Amino acid sequence: MTTLEIRRLNGAEPGFDQALRDLLDREDGPSADVRETVVDIIAQVRRQGDKALLELTRRLDAVEARSVEDLRISAERLQQSLSAIDPDLRKALEQAADRVRSYHQRQVQHSWDYVEPNGTRLGQKITPLDRVGIYVPGGKAAYPSSVLMNTIPARIAGVGEVVMTVPTPGGEVNDTVLAAAALAGVDQVFCIGGAQAVAALAYGTETIPRVDKIIGPGNAYVAVAKQLVFGQVGIDMIAGPSEVVVLCDGRANAEWAAIDLCAQAEHDERAQAILISMDADVVERVYAALKVLVPDLERAAGVRAALAAQGALIKVGDLDQAIDVVNRIAPEHLELMIDNADSVVDRIRHAGAIFIGPHSAEALGDYCAGPNHVLPTSGTARFSSPLGVYDFQKRTSLIQCSAHGADELAGTSAALARAEALTAHARSAEYRIKKPE
Amino acid sequence: MTTLEIRRLNGAEPGFDQALRDLLDREDGPSADVRETVVDIIAQVRRQGDKALLELTRRLDAVEARSVEDLRISAERLQQSLSAIDPDLRKALEQAADRVRSYHQRQVQHSWDYVEPNGTRLGQKITPLDRVGIYVPGGKAAYPSSVLMNTIPARIAGVGEVVMTVPTPGGEVNDTVLAAAALAGVDQVFCIGGAQAVAALAYGTETIPRVDKIIGPGNAYVAVAKQLVFGQVGIDMIAGPSEVVVLCDGRANAEWAAIDLCAQAEHDERAQAILISMDADVVERVYAALKVLVPDLERAAGVRAALAAQGALIKVGDLDQAIDVVNRIAPEHLELMIDNADSVVDRIRHAGAIFIGPHSAEALGDYCAGPNHVLPTSGTARFSSPLGVYDFQKRTSLIQCSAHGADELAGTSAALARAEALTAHARSAEYRIKKPE
Repeated sequence: MTTLEIRRLNGAEPGFDQALRDLLDREDGPSADVRETVVDIIAQVRRQGDKALLELTRRLDAVEARSVEDLRISAERLQQSLSAIDPDLRKALEQAADRVRSYHQRQVQHSWDYVEPNGTRLGQKITPLDRVGIYVPGGKAAYPSSVLMNTIPARIAGVGEVVMTVPTPGGEVNDTVLAAAALAGVDQVFCIGGAQAVAALAYGTETIPRVDKIIGPGNAYVAVAKQLVFGQVGIDMIAGPSEVVVLCDGRANAEWAAIDLCAQAEHDERAQAILISMDADVVERVYAALKVLVPDLERAAGVRAALAAQGALIKVGDLDQAIDVVNRIAPEHLELMIDNADSVVDRIRHAGAIFIGPHSAEALGDYCAGPNHVLPTSGTARFSSPLGVYDFQKRTSLIQCSAHGADELAGTSAALARAEALTAHARSAEYRIKKPE
Repeated sequence: MTTLEIRRLNGAEPGFDQALRDLLDREDGPSADVRETVVDIIAQVRRQGDKALLELTRRLDAVEARSVEDLRISAERLQQSLSAIDPDLRKALEQAADRVRSYHQRQVQHSWDYVEPNGTRLGQKITPLDRVGIYVPGGKAAYPSSVLMNTIPARIAGVGEVVMTVPTPGGEVNDTVLAAAALAGVDQVFCIGGAQAVAALAYGTETIPRVDKIIGPGNAYVAVAKQLVFGQVGIDMIAGPSEVVVLCDGRANAEWAAIDLCAQAEHDERAQAILISMDADVVERVYAALKVLVPDLERAAGVRAALAAQGALIKVGDLDQAIDVVNRIAPEHLELMIDNADSVVDRIRHAGAIFIGPHSAEALGDYCAGPNHVLPTSGTARFSSPLGVYDFQKRTSLIQCSAHGADELAGTSAALARAEALTAHARSAEYRIKKPE
């Protein structure tokens, strides 16, 4: 048998806490160089608009175009892509889109209000965003499934317009990505990428419309650009490397656990796959299964590298410790391959998505179970949520005081305003006591 | 009469679009100096914990303490503050807290799930954040109302622990702020501030517990610190200067409009107060009222400065143009002092809060109407929402496939995975077709 390098941790050993911290130690942010380059690119696009986009696209993507209009994928071309791809693949995209739609429709939020006895009405109005930009990476990481996952919730929210940018280095266009865009209902597609695409979406150019929010993953330049334009536009989370925690008890199918760890590790060399079990025997069986499976994988080298760099097999004392470790990791994906998995869900406080029971492979959720595959990474499940319809709706408070209601609130407001030395606030409130009309 | 400087814009004039853009032109971010200082402070706190906090608090706030424990406000001291303040003020705080609670209780989100015919269960689980940090500014901008508005939604969400930090330059403690903290249910209070408080909350020290999200306003150093620790912890929005748009028709009470503009302008010299009307006569009457009111205000100089720097009286052609201008501004606060104000609400796409009708003074909403006074500023109402209970709850996707359900999804998943060259994903899905158990 070939060897396979993967870290082993044991919850009973004294150094465990520190070893777990080391395992989860997230790298620091991007280099100052990347930041400087991105600051410069954003300034260029703000100053020169389309002209800067053409120059940067020529220089960075080796694509020559006379105008940004020439970088647009026409509506006809989008529709053609649906016939250009294999009919079975098209059917798979359609089935996935249908299921994603069906799940996300349950996330729609609705306006509400109530009227108090004195006639004052209070409430919250829900409004979809006007226009959203979806960044799609080019090259080998161009994932049609991401186009579905990012676009469908926006459409369900009622977003007025969805604009997609995708770099096409050397001019190569990915038909499956375009087909996904057509199915999901993207309105406009431009073949631009990198920090320049983010800047164009954030500020607008002569040809690219300014959007209200930019979502979608990208390389370090794209991530830094999104951070820098945040405030000018909304952004989704800055995605880190993808991670899975597979929690197995003694009865788990070791081969299933192993292939699920491999699926995670094949993303890229920074992906993190972690097994947790209270059963030492299962840990060995999963390790043995990995040794058999990995050499046979198309991306064997990458999987090996990821398992060696960030992978881990963690032996814990019992289910309580397993749950504690999961909550400390706050994983993007958690698979529960344990008996009565259902009963453990309430004790998991932090996870992007929980896959309950052995048949719930993460790969099913990645593509078509229905929930979104854009999930909080790097422990951010402690405070953030999967991408959803709610990310494309915003709220406005409604306050409609009756004359009587205002009279009742004015005294309290004025007292607090004076305590804060905001006396014009106090007067404004007190004007509503007088009832001069 | 004294003069009063305020910009005038007219929607019928050719330069109006550019003039409106200039009016709304948000300043660029903080200086590189501030950023460098903050990067350094964060590094110190991460490296040296309590020791760094003590040193920075001594240097920046002129407060000497032997330990960070000495900077803690005890639970007894918190309770004492309730008796230390004027009983009427305490009653006002209690009334405000009650109304804020009553409104925010309607924002609680609940877990949901559904079972498909084949037995697959899908859903979304809602979990409150474990621990939240509330930053409260010290000095003259120490607002007890902000303590209520930031803490109450967290408590309603079910947040496990609320930790507050407030700088006390020179050792001066604000009893009303402490009373608000006691009423709202803050668990721990530390007298630290600035970037060092943000760093301590984000990373934890020997004494300050690490939190999952940091909310609350602060100066430029606090704002930059929040941006830099984002990702390590969640943050709320970065608040810009406060703004109001008052939309009046010919029948509006000019004096009420004027005092409401003054209330906004008294916040600080960067506050923005804008009047919009389709009635030239009302514009003149509001201007005349301002000239009378401003000299009499406690903060007359500041109000004058804010009105001169960012204030505006905008004459528009009709209600349609008024609404268009409002949507372009996307104001934090919007007052509708027009007939049938209610009927216009649906046409307002972007605003933090809408105050409907003449009795709904912004000052009533700032303190006690019920909705939150932490609202999106600087046009960010285009894509963001008032602070709410939803900011302290997060979601986890639930996927529980039945054997039959997994079998149905596996083919679609595998087809899409292969199209993305993620073949271990495809295999993982296909293992669930075999049904070996």
